[in-house]
Amino acid sequence: MSFNTFGRVFRFTTWGESHGPAIGAVVDGCPPGLAILEADLQPFLDKRRPGTSRFTTQRQEPDQVRILSGVFEGRTTGTPISLMIENVDQRSKDYSEVAKAYRPGHADYAYDAKYGIRDYRGGGRSSARETAARVAAGAVARLVIPEVSILGYVSEIGGDAIDMANFDAAEIGNNPFFCPDARAAARWEKLVDEARLAGSSLGAIVECVATGVPAGWGAPIYGKLDADLAAAMMGINAVKAVEIGEGFNAARLRGEENADPMRPGENGPDFEANHAGGIAGGISTGQPVVVRVAFKPTSSILTPVETITREGEATEIVTKGRHDPCVGIRGTPVVEAMTAFVLADHKLLQRAQRGEA
Amino acid sequence: MSFNTFGRVFRFTTWGESHGPAIGAVVDGCPPGLAILEADLQPFLDKRRPGTSRFTTQRQEPDQVRILSGVFEGRTTGTPISLMIENVDQRSKDYSEVAKAYRPGHADYAYDAKYGIRDYRGGGRSSARETAARVAAGAVARLVIPEVSILGYVSEIGGDAIDMANFDAAEIGNNPFFCPDARAAARWEKLVDEARLAGSSLGAIVECVATGVPAGWGAPIYGKLDADLAAAMMGINAVKAVEIGEGFNAARLRGEENADPMRPGENGPDFEANHAGGIAGGISTGQPVVVRVAFKPTSSILTPVETITREGEATEIVTKGRHDPCVGIRGTPVVEAMTAFVLADHKLLQRAQRGEA
Amino acid sequence: MSFNTFGRVFRFTTWGESHGPAIGAVVDGCPPGLAILEADLQPFLDKRRPGTSRFTTQRQEPDQVRILSGVFEGRTTGTPISLMIENVDQRSKDYSEVAKAYRPGHADYAYDAKYGIRDYRGGGRSSARETAARVAAGAVARLVIPEVSILGYVSEIGGDAIDMANFDAAEIGNNPFFCPDARAAARWEKLVDEARLAGSSLGAIVECVATGVPAGWGAPIYGKLDADLAAAMMGINAVKAVEIGEGFNAARLRGEENADPMRPGENGPDFEANHAGGIAGGISTGQPVVVRVAFKPTSSILTPVETITREGEATEIVTKGRHDPCVGIRGTPVVEAMTAFVLADHKLLQRAQRGEA
Amino acid sequence: MSFNTFGRVFRFTTWGESHGPAIGAVVDGCPPGLAILEADLQPFLDKRRPGTSRFTTQRQEPDQVRILSGVFEGRTTGTPISLMIENVDQRSKDYSEVAKAYRPGHADYAYDAKYGIRDYRGGGRSSARETAARVAAGAVARLVIPEVSILGYVSEIGGDAIDMANFDAAEIGNNPFFCPDARAAARWEKLVDEARLAGSSLGAIVECVATGVPAGWGAPIYGKLDADLAAAMMGINAVKAVEIGEGFNAARLRGEENADPMRPGENGPDFEANHAGGIAGGISTGQPVVVRVAFKPTSSILTPVETITREGEATEIVTKGRHDPCVGIRGTPVVEAMTAFVLADHKLLQRAQRGEA
Repeated sequence: MSFNTFGRVFRFTTWGESHGPAIGAVVDGCPPGLAILEADLQPFLDKRRPGTSRFTTQRQEPDQVRILSGVFEGRTTGTPISLMIENVDQRSKDYSEVAKAYRPGHADYAYDAKYGIRDYRGGGRSSARETAARVAAGAVARLVIPEVSILGYVSEIGGDAIDMANFDAAEIGNNPFFCPDARAAARWEKLVDEARLAGSSLGAIVECVATGVPAGWGAPIYGKLDADLAAAMMGINAVKAVEIGEGFNAARLRGEENADPMRPGENGPDFEANHAGGIAGGISTGQPVVVRVAFKPTSSILTPVETITREGEATEIVTKGRHDPCVGIRGTPVVEAMTAFVLADHKLLQRAQRGEA
Repeated sequence: MSFNTFGRVFRFTTWGESHGPAIGAVVDGCPPGLAILEADLQPFLDKRRPGTSRFTTQRQEPDQVRILSGVFEGRTTGTPISLMIENVDQRSKDYSEVAKAYRPGHADYAYDAKYGIRDYRGGGRSSARETAARVAAGAVARLVIPEVSILGYVSEIGGDAIDMANFDAAEIGNNPFFCPDARAAARWEKLVDEARLAGSSLGAIVECVATGVPAGWGAPIYGKLDADLAAAMMGINAVKAVEIGEGFNAARLRGEENADPMRPGENGPDFEANHAGGIAGGISTGQPVVVRVAFKPTSSILTPVETITREGEATEIVTKGRHDPCVGIRGTPVVEAMTAFVLADHKLLQRAQRGEA
Repeated sequence: MSFNTFGRVFRFTTWGESHGPAIGAVVDGCPPGLAILEADLQPFLDKRRPGTSRFTTQRQEPDQVRILSGVFEGRTTGTPISLMIENVDQRSKDYSEVAKAYRPGHADYAYDAKYGIRDYRGGGRSSARETAARVAAGAVARLVIPEVSILGYVSEIGGDAIDMANFDAAEIGNNPFFCPDARAAARWEKLVDEARLAGSSLGAIVECVATGVPAGWGAPIYGKLDADLAAAMMGINAVKAVEIGEGFNAARLRGEENADPMRPGENGPDFEANHAGGIAGGISTGQPVVVRVAFKPTSSILTPVETITREGEATEIVTKGRHDPCVGIRGTPVVEAMTAFVLADHKLLQRAQRGEA
Repeated sequence: MSFNTFGRVFRFTTWGESHGPAIGAVVDGCPPGLAILEADLQPFLDKRRPGTSRFTTQRQEPDQVRILSGVFEGRTTGTPISLMIENVDQRSKDYSEVAKAYRPGHADYAYDAKYGIRDYRGGGRSSARETAARVAAGAVARLVIPEVSILGYVSEIGGDAIDMANFDAAEIGNNPFFCPDARAAARWEKLVDEARLAGSSLGAIVECVATGVPAGWGAPIYGKLDADLAAAMMGINAVKAVEIGEGFNAARLRGEENADPMRPGENGPDFEANHAGGIAGGISTGQPVVVRVAFKPTSSILTPVETITREGEATEIVTKGRHDPCVGIRGTPVVEAMTAFVLADHKLLQRAQRGEA
């Protein structure tokens, strides 16, 4: 089965393939009356847009988003917001080889096993191009939660991590890696260039911190805030792991070390630590929500890899085309978008059950 | 909002609190005609049952599961299967102190912030006691996927990992830790005892491997198999991180290292590696599905921790009661159960869209 | 597939068969802090309870409802409310004949065609006994919408309609037919007695009026208030038709006749008519919501009817057992319950999207 | 809240307003491998298209449907099918008066009460123009259920019913009323012309019969086939009532009269009557599924009606613009489309639970 809709009461549905005429998202359940222009959404798309530096795919896509419905005189009407992004720079000829053989690490074989048919051009529906639609939907979500600030950044590429002592949020926009540590950014330039020129690829770790989330968001037991975030993150192309707060490290701490003591604060408790990553029992605690995500290295590489054809014959494949040497980089705005959407959905859910008391 | 239902077309809904009269699960969408007895479900509950060794809580619960509906003459009828487990050993008096102050690391404060009211007895709805209902539902799910074998085990406690060279599946049932490495089990005995006697607690890592999953299960884009597994795992009490296959390590590999080359096999490809953990593009590849989960150390410890009362006054809390020194251990059958349920749901979804062609 | 859950953000899941040990409902998403006792729910169950007059089935069921979870110190906690009703007077021996042949008009053949297996005792899951669980859930829903009054009544039995000129709401509880017209009630006594003694059965029409529903509830386009009510009603056992407001008669009016003119009122408009039945564009208008439902005559009759056995052989069947001569009567509290639940769900949905501005 | 998605595992999401640039539907969960061209969908849209006779609105819309995704080399791929229809003939100036005052019978007041904002141009999202997207989605659904034939027709306009003795399916396409009775069609020509010229409007009844539905489709208890059909129908603009099979008339029959006796047949039973309308216990019986729907008269009329302005002042309104004198006529292909979609969804659900055994 296919499920191309994300969210519970605030939802978006995406459509479109890498090499079709367009891709899009339909955002449903948006509160009415919010001021919104295409220009409010475009900056987020521009962050994810390919071709802006030599460290991303050279496919040239303006990723201009159009609002086709749900907005009247510059305000949301509460009806579905249809967002469309045209595909401009599809070069289907690049993919003739992919039609014949499965690219290891890609979804080619799995899609064929599932559907018995596959649009092989650029990965079709499985292409990370679909994430542009998520970014557009996430930009709408941000309007729903003005009380929340969401900051995503790359904390590690190819095993080379930032130094949190150098963390500077202002630095994130100053380099092509969404890197908050200027020295790490300088190192990564060489690292990524080397991989790119070698036709290889690198993995990355993206962190995302949401501040301003009030205590009480989350839907126990099977719609917990952390569970919804985990699904949102794991569903992003190339993601293989998700942590909340202390994450895997929590398994190595003792109870005393992992405690988040509380003291009386002005609005609820002041927490003296945030090992929990802002979520306890699946419900936000009022502390920053901290998510960490691992992106695998891009599967498209120039080194020949053994594979099979659709007919089951042995062959080798080299993935030429145009690819990101490190997909995690452009994953950053996608992680932000999905975080925003999950939080907005849970804000609406909380006021469904509680009102605004 | 609350969401106490898990699954898409195959679903279960759980109810009940730690100190109420009973807990239960209603399993809906089960295929009809499956042979099922209470005795088929009980062994799984027995694995999770408390009080079976000194390494788990001393609460004595028989966790006897009753089937109240959906079964006729020993077979499922396709109608909802109501499963009920009575609570026998509730000692509400133990929790008088919890009524007054929030236990750090627990969901106490978050539940109060969310609902404005909280059943403080044993954590109420946020207690891991709820997971017994999941294990019952998961036992039904196993009947739906006889082609799949699911094996969960603890791979690390308090930072002390098993040696995969010693891995012996037969060993898992021979120790109270679900540990497949006899030597590690011996070490853990001391480790957990020490923590237990010190009134401290330890975290753990649980791995789960599902073999026999055919290629093609998973629901792109927003119901991917790995995303559903991630949500299922992250929603388990005390879980803070989830990995599929290579997980976080994938972020440190190069594209060549992370490739899973394919050769012609008898039924589809033979993969030469399984970095992907059996899932590509959110769809199963036919390889073993590999999930890894981090459990934080139990938040209930004897060391006093700073906290606040409901009224916002500063205080300290020591959590006496009866607790697991390492919740990850009994988390193992829960991880298995959730894995089973996700896979069964996706089996049904796949045949919805494809039939059985 | 089976779907035993009703509702969108406020939901209930029912389970149980006519001749199993019990039936129940799990109500999820209930706002926290509502005062609730079993005694608040019981009166609604007592209205639907069988065996209270000679005009209903003689099965003796106390229909005592128990709250097993979700309530603490007399208040809802926002977690799932598990409601259980034990089956007391199952006489499975009555149904031996039903095991062999399909009762025309009943769901026997359809269940077998769907599931390939069927609990034939008293209709199993298809029995109207399941509606007791709906009534319990509906009683919880009423607590969520204290601003709304819901009044159901029988307006017609066997083609004999009430005279609206005689309508007296106080009369509804004075006769065994939920009839607001004392003269009609007197006529129906004879009518139903005659059918009962002849081993025949009668259909009925039930109306339900909800006053106090504010303007703005309803979820366009595919969760319209009237669409959700239509599904809720059509899903009640034996219902074959649903009308909102003018209903079928609207098809015979001209635009001028069907208009509901508005004048300025104190809170929004004063409507001069209510042909719309309180709903326009799937959204409540602030006028009374008016639903009308047709119940077919009970399919269990003493007249022999041609049918086939499970093996496909021709036979005749006479349905003895214990049955309502007119199921529509006891359908009244079920119609009320479903109306209450739909409205409560939409109240929560509206404040999800709008807040309480 | 808004819910613009219809269906359970086979789903569509619509978007767009009467006077926006376009409207559309995203169809999700479609089985892969189905042959599909835009030319397969267009005939259904042409049936619903406005401006084809003087008996419908004179708005000129080519209603050309484009497939933007989900199809590769003429076959469905199992991924979302995005369908878009451009709005060509919007004349927003016609609606200046509607901006000020609420049109009685329309959703104007209700939308404003719900959302606090409203796109008044042509009714915005509440316009029946949205139903073009349903027809496109329904055309896809037909491809999923080739075993089923769906036939909709108008059986009554303005209280003037067809004579079933004259029923001729071939006649339906020969007149602008989808009327299977040539004599009734002749009468309706005068009837509708008279109403049209008088600036008045008429209601209608549409019947829809689906043959070839196998026994066993439907999802008890809260996704019954008849309940889903009822919601699907009641959610169509201007619909106020829904019947299955005997419908309201069943309330006036005795049990003996309403029975559908069975005899042994070649594939399951031969039914000797179809009072049930092909559905028992919410599950298809293998007989034709019969649905009947009442459309109210168009609310847009030239007779002045009392109303209020947005500011709550008394005024009168005359709805000029371009309108159907009888919306029920063009409702026919919409009823067919929704019937097709519900049936296709339930086909997939049934094979999810049962496989194709």
